[in-house]
Amino acid sequence: MIMKDSERTDNYDKIAIDTSQKYKGKIRTLPRVPIHGLDDFSVLYTPGIAAVSKKIASDDDLVYDLTGKWNSVAILTDGTRVLGIGNVGPHAAIPVMEGKALLFNYLGGVNAIPIPLNVKNNDEFITAARAIEPYFGGYNLEDIESPRCFFLLESLQKQMSIPVWHDDQLGTASIILAGAINSLRLVNKKKEDARVVFNGAGAANIAAMYLFESAGFSKKNMIAVDSRGILEPERKDIDSLMLKNPWKYKIALETNGDRVTGDVSNAFKGADIVISASKSEPGTVKSDWIKLMNKEPVVFALANPLPEIWPQDAKNAGAKIVATGRSDFPNQINNSMVFPGVFRGVLDARSKGVNFGIMVAASNGIADYVENPDYDHIVPTMDDLELFPQIASIVARKTVESKLARRTDTQAGFLRTATEIIESNRKIYNKLFDEK
Amino acid sequence: MIMKDSERTDNYDKIAIDTSQKYKGKIRTLPRVPIHGLDDFSVLYTPGIAAVSKKIASDDDLVYDLTGKWNSVAILTDGTRVLGIGNVGPHAAIPVMEGKALLFNYLGGVNAIPIPLNVKNNDEFITAARAIEPYFGGYNLEDIESPRCFFLLESLQKQMSIPVWHDDQLGTASIILAGAINSLRLVNKKKEDARVVFNGAGAANIAAMYLFESAGFSKKNMIAVDSRGILEPERKDIDSLMLKNPWKYKIALETNGDRVTGDVSNAFKGADIVISASKSEPGTVKSDWIKLMNKEPVVFALANPLPEIWPQDAKNAGAKIVATGRSDFPNQINNSMVFPGVFRGVLDARSKGVNFGIMVAASNGIADYVENPDYDHIVPTMDDLELFPQIASIVARKTVESKLARRTDTQAGFLRTATEIIESNRKIYNKLFDEK
Repeated sequence: MIMKDSERTDNYDKIAIDTSQKYKGKIRTLPRVPIHGLDDFSVLYTPGIAAVSKKIASDDDLVYDLTGKWNSVAILTDGTRVLGIGNVGPHAAIPVMEGKALLFNYLGGVNAIPIPLNVKNNDEFITAARAIEPYFGGYNLEDIESPRCFFLLESLQKQMSIPVWHDDQLGTASIILAGAINSLRLVNKKKEDARVVFNGAGAANIAAMYLFESAGFSKKNMIAVDSRGILEPERKDIDSLMLKNPWKYKIALETNGDRVTGDVSNAFKGADIVISASKSEPGTVKSDWIKLMNKEPVVFALANPLPEIWPQDAKNAGAKIVATGRSDFPNQINNSMVFPGVFRGVLDARSKGVNFGIMVAASNGIADYVENPDYDHIVPTMDDLELFPQIASIVARKTVESKLARRTDTQAGFLRTATEIIESNRKIYNKLFDEK
Repeated sequence: MIMKDSERTDNYDKIAIDTSQKYKGKIRTLPRVPIHGLDDFSVLYTPGIAAVSKKIASDDDLVYDLTGKWNSVAILTDGTRVLGIGNVGPHAAIPVMEGKALLFNYLGGVNAIPIPLNVKNNDEFITAARAIEPYFGGYNLEDIESPRCFFLLESLQKQMSIPVWHDDQLGTASIILAGAINSLRLVNKKKEDARVVFNGAGAANIAAMYLFESAGFSKKNMIAVDSRGILEPERKDIDSLMLKNPWKYKIALETNGDRVTGDVSNAFKGADIVISASKSEPGTVKSDWIKLMNKEPVVFALANPLPEIWPQDAKNAGAKIVATGRSDFPNQINNSMVFPGVFRGVLDARSKGVNFGIMVAASNGIADYVENPDYDHIVPTMDDLELFPQIASIVARKTVESKLARRTDTQAGFLRTATEIIESNRKIYNKLFDEK
């Protein structure tokens, strides 16, 4: 069923528009409680419901027991960086957020609500995000331009008492780390010694550098490259970087222990792993650069829809392991493998937050899930549906150990909870969509 | 199945808490589109969905055709006046908002999302409400203390390009007006001449006075009474009222053409209708006062859970028609008869707003729906499920005539649309809750 790329893309586009038009939106609200008639509203609404409100007023933590907060996630975006199409604003972002909400629900059993925001600046974003916290057990930020996404994530994580996640940073970084862990196992190298080049210094790669450090990689062995070349403390634009993008500035100061300068190719010299998240154009990463890497090099070419180098070209240049963002090549690095399990986990632990420690545990769990990794199988695939409750239980347990949990359980207990929630939710799909 | 009041209330309380505990929240998110596996996400999410976003980016109005905005309503509250229990904050408000969301869905086929707000002041409320507009086709404000509810409603109605409704004001006022219209028909009096006393000057009654005026009642024939007595321009606290509650101040200046002063009983003298929305305690309105009213007096004693005077006492004192807020007496004045139809209507017309003209049309529609009104049947009951699409079609058509609609149709067309949406939504309940 393989079509030419152009054909397939055209077709997806048309079906996507037709589907959106036909169904007029992709999510709906329905009751969790059986309703057979108006009489039921005497307890679902007035007069009975006042007793439930009074109970929560007397013990705030009961909001997790008596309302849908425990399983509700807001998907927040300002629409400034929607998929590959840029700053199209909050209305045009809705179709993507609805699709994401469905993935949350289908894979993680989570009730996710698209909340695209009409905001003029970061202050308004934060005021709105703080204001709507009461009903939600977690936030997923999505499709927000860099570097403001760093500022918003950092500010909200500090100010909120629920987990705040930016999937384009944290989700992507987590699955990159999982892939890197299994890659190093296959080529028999140690993370402490691995030289890692991050080609592209946007949301995902900057988050990945911090996450790799938490996982035990050495920042001195990392080199970051942006569109102006290798990041290092003596670079001409370093002062303006400090003002415009303090996160990238910090990377420039703390990585690149050997103070490599100059052309991108210099960064590749002797590297063990290259993580490229830059321009969606084959040829952006050159075969000649891969030839400069250390033995058994690992290349992640993650730009979508077109990778920075075609996998076969990378292999021909000597790459031992190649990963991309695409499902039609081996080793798809896809953040959808991460967020459903992570959110199921932090929600089940009723977490106050999420941190790099929890993410490292998730990445290790994802890497370990692949029973017999090989060069073409460094990460699970989307068909590995048991991955999600598994990761949920690891994340929930790590949340407890990090003293962020409002609810505790054993890992086996969390696994049962997550499995039950996801499976019972999936069963409803059969009820709704069985055509009999 | 009639129990003593105390027994019944205790029982409702217990069942309400047990139900909330068992089901852990009352609403869930589910797909509108059939999903049979992960392959479907190629069009529900990437890569196909980008084409849908691009279409909306090129024509903003398509957001109503291609996303769930057309049918999504946010229920906004700050939890400052929750049911009868007061300022319990946004967490404790959630059970009520979830119940309301279910009513929206069950009666109107609307996807309603509880959005309780954690805000320190009106500015933060407005910033948050403006920020989250993109996904919603309308807002329902709920359980917000007076007088700030007047300020918030007025500000948001001016600033938003979707309908903003405060149900405790507008919903209650609409059903009061419907009941008053049929009452006057039964006692053969004209609205232009009717003397109406509004006992209590909170959210509902203040909104009702403005709405009655829009419907053709004379403001000069209205008298408003608050806890300090009859409102009139010479009252001692009039200057502080101007600052603290300009809406009530305006009422004091514009009503009470005869400049009646003094005790509440003076207001009742010669009144045709009394609308009481004050203290939930029988005896608050006295039999002796009703004896002072004009012939064939109409008494609405709307405090919940206990009316200001028991219906039989009011009748014994000469009241021809008595209405309360309760379902166990005739003539229940219940805003749940209004908002599902009104929202279905403004949503189907993709309205930019809602106004008193539209509300008067809704109230007339509700009054006319009662085919043979009698003293014990001045408004429909909650079992009249056909009321909702009927009101929706009247509201949608009036929205078109008011030049607020983004989508136009005949009244018959709007009736078909509303009926189809509500019925197909209700069918899903059978699929979900049929125990076979």
